[in-house]
Amino acid sequence: MRYAARVEYDGTGFAGFQVQPGARTVQGELEAALATISGGSRVRVVAAGRTDAGVHAIGQVISFTDPKGRPAKELARALDALLPEDVAIREVRRVPAGFNPRYAARYREYRYTVWNGPRSPLRERFALGVRDQLDTAAMERAGSALVGRHDFSAFGATHRQPVRTVHSVRVRRAGSLVTIDVAADAFLRGMVRRIVAGLLEVGHGRTNEEAVAEALASKRAAFNGATAPAKGLCLRRVVLGPMRARDTQVSTTARPNGER
Amino acid sequence: MRYAARVEYDGTGFAGFQVQPGARTVQGELEAALATISGGSRVRVVAAGRTDAGVHAIGQVISFTDPKGRPAKELARALDALLPEDVAIREVRRVPAGFNPRYAARYREYRYTVWNGPRSPLRERFALGVRDQLDTAAMERAGSALVGRHDFSAFGATHRQPVRTVHSVRVRRAGSLVTIDVAADAFLRGMVRRIVAGLLEVGHGRTNEEAVAEALASKRAAFNGATAPAKGLCLRRVVLGPMRARDTQVSTTARPNGER
Repeated sequence: MRYAARVEYDGTGFAGFQVQPGARTVQGELEAALATISGGSRVRVVAAGRTDAGVHAIGQVISFTDPKGRPAKELARALDALLPEDVAIREVRRVPAGFNPRYAARYREYRYTVWNGPRSPLRERFALGVRDQLDTAAMERAGSALVGRHDFSAFGATHRQPVRTVHSVRVRRAGSLVTIDVAADAFLRGMVRRIVAGLLEVGHGRTNEEAVAEALASKRAAFNGATAPAKGLCLRRVVLGPMRARDTQVSTTARPNGER
Repeated sequence: MRYAARVEYDGTGFAGFQVQPGARTVQGELEAALATISGGSRVRVVAAGRTDAGVHAIGQVISFTDPKGRPAKELARALDALLPEDVAIREVRRVPAGFNPRYAARYREYRYTVWNGPRSPLRERFALGVRDQLDTAAMERAGSALVGRHDFSAFGATHRQPVRTVHSVRVRRAGSLVTIDVAADAFLRGMVRRIVAGLLEVGHGRTNEEAVAEALASKRAAFNGATAPAKGLCLRRVVLGPMRARDTQVSTTARPNGER
């Protein structure tokens, strides 16, 4: 039986989502908990977004298989009880056997949080501190230049297929709190943090909106290459779309019963 | 010259405010920074509230003396630059020479934060997680029984003068976030956390409002003695009142000039 689950984590203590030898990872913790409830056998976890070291998540979606086909609620309880303080599992659901959140995700929403004020120890863990007043209206305008289907090579790690669709870039201020929300069908590695670094340059008045649009058009890792620190970034939501041909096909052959 | 400063800290990494041998304390960090900018001589720091281990502050008020009488802004910058990530200094102001925030504080406001929902790693550091739905209306009613001038022996560590005036107890809910704000002229040691423990018992339906009022009236450490965990507690604000005779007197004799 295949399941999907929503996962929340404080990324501070992790070397990222994906398993790496000798490093503490979210995937590692999840797979350890799954192994425990599966009598020691390895259970592979797949995620919608392989977040980098230090990046947080409140709406990460993962999937895994439980050969015993236990009720979703029972799995949620058992796994959550085994996980450490900085990872929690929520809302386990049964999904078709071929389900893979990486392909099922229609879009992802990330939030970058900036504390735009004097140094604040209570904000330190989940926000980037920026003392000088940011021009959020200029940041919002610069962000809107990125919306649409583009080659995002200028804002991501090298990838053989660098075209992504950015649905929205929203910059909001509430007192000293500035949030930058970016939604896209998918992201290149480091893409949100490079977009944020670019918008922060605009917010500081060190560059302008046209420069951001030009960087995008250049299609090369041109926009000074800076990335905003991981601690301000959080994967907020993964919206799952209709099953694709690939999933439906696998589920039809592999599903042991008719449940969806 | 005497100064007052507002201080913010993440209490997680501290054994409390007050200096203790062999422990990391907020006072210790502040005094170390002051010693550095004072050529190594010890500068004593006094605080409005000596918060316990793990308790946070956003509006702690401290005072100290700078023999060089440097401008307040210069001191703020110099000290803040020397402090670690989890303590920040803000808004330094000159005050009369005899100023002591412990006596000058007219009232203090603490906030206790409860995450009333499924386990949340992103809330873990600054809130107590409570999964079962709390009856916040009953908690608010129970809290109102504590408002006024009372002997708070039932909700604090033993003290030879246990009478305090609680100005307000407010319980608010915003989704899963429940905040309990308590304002009083002063607090006995552990008093907010014991009040919160009592209100949580009411919120769980394990006891009722009358029991809280009876515990108060008993004037002995009666209300099951439980204290809510430190991590949910934050000293939000210290409101300084008019100078008392003691301060004015000292300041008249010790102030090197007429500045207030």
